[in-house]
Amino acid sequence: NRNYAISVIPGDGIGKEVMPEGIRVLERAASLYGFTIEQTWQDFACCDYYAKHGQMMPDDWKAQIGNPDAIFFGAVGWPDTVPDHISLWGSLLQFRREYDQYVNLRPVRLMPGVPCPLVGREPGDIDFWVVRENTEGEYSSVGGKMFPGTPREVVIQETVMTRHGTDRVLRYAFELAATRDRKHVTSATKSNGIAITMPWWDERVEEMAKNYPTVTHDKYHIDILTAQFVLNPDRFDVVVASNLFGDILSDLGPACTGTIGVAPSGNINPDRTAPSLFEPVHGSAPDIAGKGIANPVGQIWSAAMMLEHLGEADAAAAIMRAVETVLAQPGLRTGDLKGKANTEQCGKAIADAL
Amino acid sequence: NRNYAISVIPGDGIGKEVMPEGIRVLERAASLYGFTIEQTWQDFACCDYYAKHGQMMPDDWKAQIGNPDAIFFGAVGWPDTVPDHISLWGSLLQFRREYDQYVNLRPVRLMPGVPCPLVGREPGDIDFWVVRENTEGEYSSVGGKMFPGTPREVVIQETVMTRHGTDRVLRYAFELAATRDRKHVTSATKSNGIAITMPWWDERVEEMAKNYPTVTHDKYHIDILTAQFVLNPDRFDVVVASNLFGDILSDLGPACTGTIGVAPSGNINPDRTAPSLFEPVHGSAPDIAGKGIANPVGQIWSAAMMLEHLGEADAAAAIMRAVETVLAQPGLRTGDLKGKANTEQCGKAIADAL
Ligand SMILES: CC(C)[C@H](C(=O)O)[C@@H](O)C(=O)O
Ligand SMILES: CC(C)[C@H](C(=O)O)[C@@H](O)C(=O)O
Repeated sequence: NRNYAISVIPGDGIGKEVMPEGIRVLERAASLYGFTIEQTWQDFACCDYYAKHGQMMPDDWKAQIGNPDAIFFGAVGWPDTVPDHISLWGSLLQFRREYDQYVNLRPVRLMPGVPCPLVGREPGDIDFWVVRENTEGEYSSVGGKMFPGTPREVVIQETVMTRHGTDRVLRYAFELAATRDRKHVTSATKSNGIAITMPWWDERVEEMAKNYPTVTHDKYHIDILTAQFVLNPDRFDVVVASNLFGDILSDLGPACTGTIGVAPSGNINPDRTAPSLFEPVHGSAPDIAGKGIANPVGQIWSAAMMLEHLGEADAAAAIMRAVETVLAQPGLRTGDLKGKANTEQCGKAIADAL
Repeated sequence: NRNYAISVIPGDGIGKEVMPEGIRVLERAASLYGFTIEQTWQDFACCDYYAKHGQMMPDDWKAQIGNPDAIFFGAVGWPDTVPDHISLWGSLLQFRREYDQYVNLRPVRLMPGVPCPLVGREPGDIDFWVVRENTEGEYSSVGGKMFPGTPREVVIQETVMTRHGTDRVLRYAFELAATRDRKHVTSATKSNGIAITMPWWDERVEEMAKNYPTVTHDKYHIDILTAQFVLNPDRFDVVVASNLFGDILSDLGPACTGTIGVAPSGNINPDRTAPSLFEPVHGSAPDIAGKGIANPVGQIWSAAMMLEHLGEADAAAAIMRAVETVLAQPGLRTGDLKGKANTEQCGKAIADAL
């Protein structure tokens, strides 16, 4: 059955502008590769919805979304009207948890046409994956305040890691590494400073590694690991990290390859007990929203990741070839990459290159 | 009284190799600028001590250190014999807390002779400070395990922030910015994801900013902030951050300016109720220890920061000029900077350039 039910959630800001281009490319790919996409658009998980309803999503959002094959997401957040922690915890972070999308998967790849801020790096030199734990860890809602509003104020937030939650993301990382040429896993830790959770994380990595004799592994403390991303990005193959460390590394990685404007991500439930969600790494970008100039490549690359997940590997690969072709041409890139195209022109060019 | 009592703690690995060069330059500066340095060397706070005594420091370490004007520290850690969290929590992290060194201050400055990994950046383009909270926050020892060693295992670590601890480091950052040309503070946050402590951190920043009408400020989430360090490092003036975020940024910043091998840091008690501690940013570097090839500049620059703190600003500035002179000459730099000198030759060259 190659008819895919996709829940489409554009969200806020430039999410609403890049989504149509993601859909354009998806539809073109469907007609070329002989599958169909059945879209259901949702108007919630955005700050406009919050303005009308006082919450980011309806109470029955799960029922409304139903059981699609995947969720195609834009970006959420509009801090001028809704504080970020409210908009995010009321939408994206809920999806990740409630749908048990326990892997956040992001490629770090130097693409043609994207100027690299690092000296002497060429497309092909940098090509690795960040595998981020996506449901627990530092992103907990456990904690609170004592003596609030007084000079004695104490604020506590707990990091909660479970063996269940840790082992499964480590397993995903080692499995992924096993399919790659270099077969190497790098673990992000901070066991010298964060002295309860992180030494334990290191132990779990060692345990898991025993199951993968063909995969090599090492670890770096997060501080020096960020330095290594800048100094030796060619060293990495699969980097596995906790929720917060993975968040940091998966913005820093794309920055080291030129821009987070083109980077995609998958929020993946590998057990397929609930839908996975695909979204660009960039946010809603209030500063450029409404101008039609946002770079649609992050959304389009996310479409490719989604198709890969759905089993349409040929279509996914074709989209990536089209993206590379278009990025290589200044007339077809958007302004953030010193190109001349607007969002729609760039999206159309990629659809045509397909 | 220009006689300074300095507690000297070389520590482990290359700490023992770069310390003599730091001392060499310090003594030369003293004789040239007419002050004296009274050194007391300590053999604890290192893994050799641990091997003999089963702990990193004697029980009466505070009494043994006494009340020096400052502590000059090398590096600690030797993971092959003592796990990092034990060696660090038993030494450096204890100093920071027990001596209430609540500011960790690190310059990010592009120096001549240090090849910058970022495209098109010249010495002078990048010049800012990272002000890191150094006693609380994410580096707590509060937490524990439930169901340890079983599949149900849950591990919890608490981040603890206090108004007392937060406000004083923010104040330091705003005061520092007020003395600088650009008068700008950037706060590192993650209030969209870390939803209890970080929104509160943002509030404290806004409160503190009200006292400094001449200082501008903004904030970035830590993920995108690391990206900005790579893409727009010229944008920053003073960056203030929690303990963990500051740890990350103060390794990443020096990496963006070429190497953490030359970066210094001050662990400062601004109220001078206890000694401050000055140390290079690099660690004990087991991989190159014992070869006499480590770069001594981080230790020597730390000596300059220490002299600045002691009120010997002229001598501090002279050391920095000598460092710049030597770094500009390949024959005098160490191998990590594609130079030809070993640790001692580089240290001597800087002392002579004074
Ligand atoms: C060694 C480690 C505990 C320490 C820290 O994380 O503070 C180091 O990275 C630093 O930045 O001084
Ligand atoms: C918006 C924010 C909560 C989110 C995160 O921190 O996970 C984003 O940065 C991301 O990486 O998807």
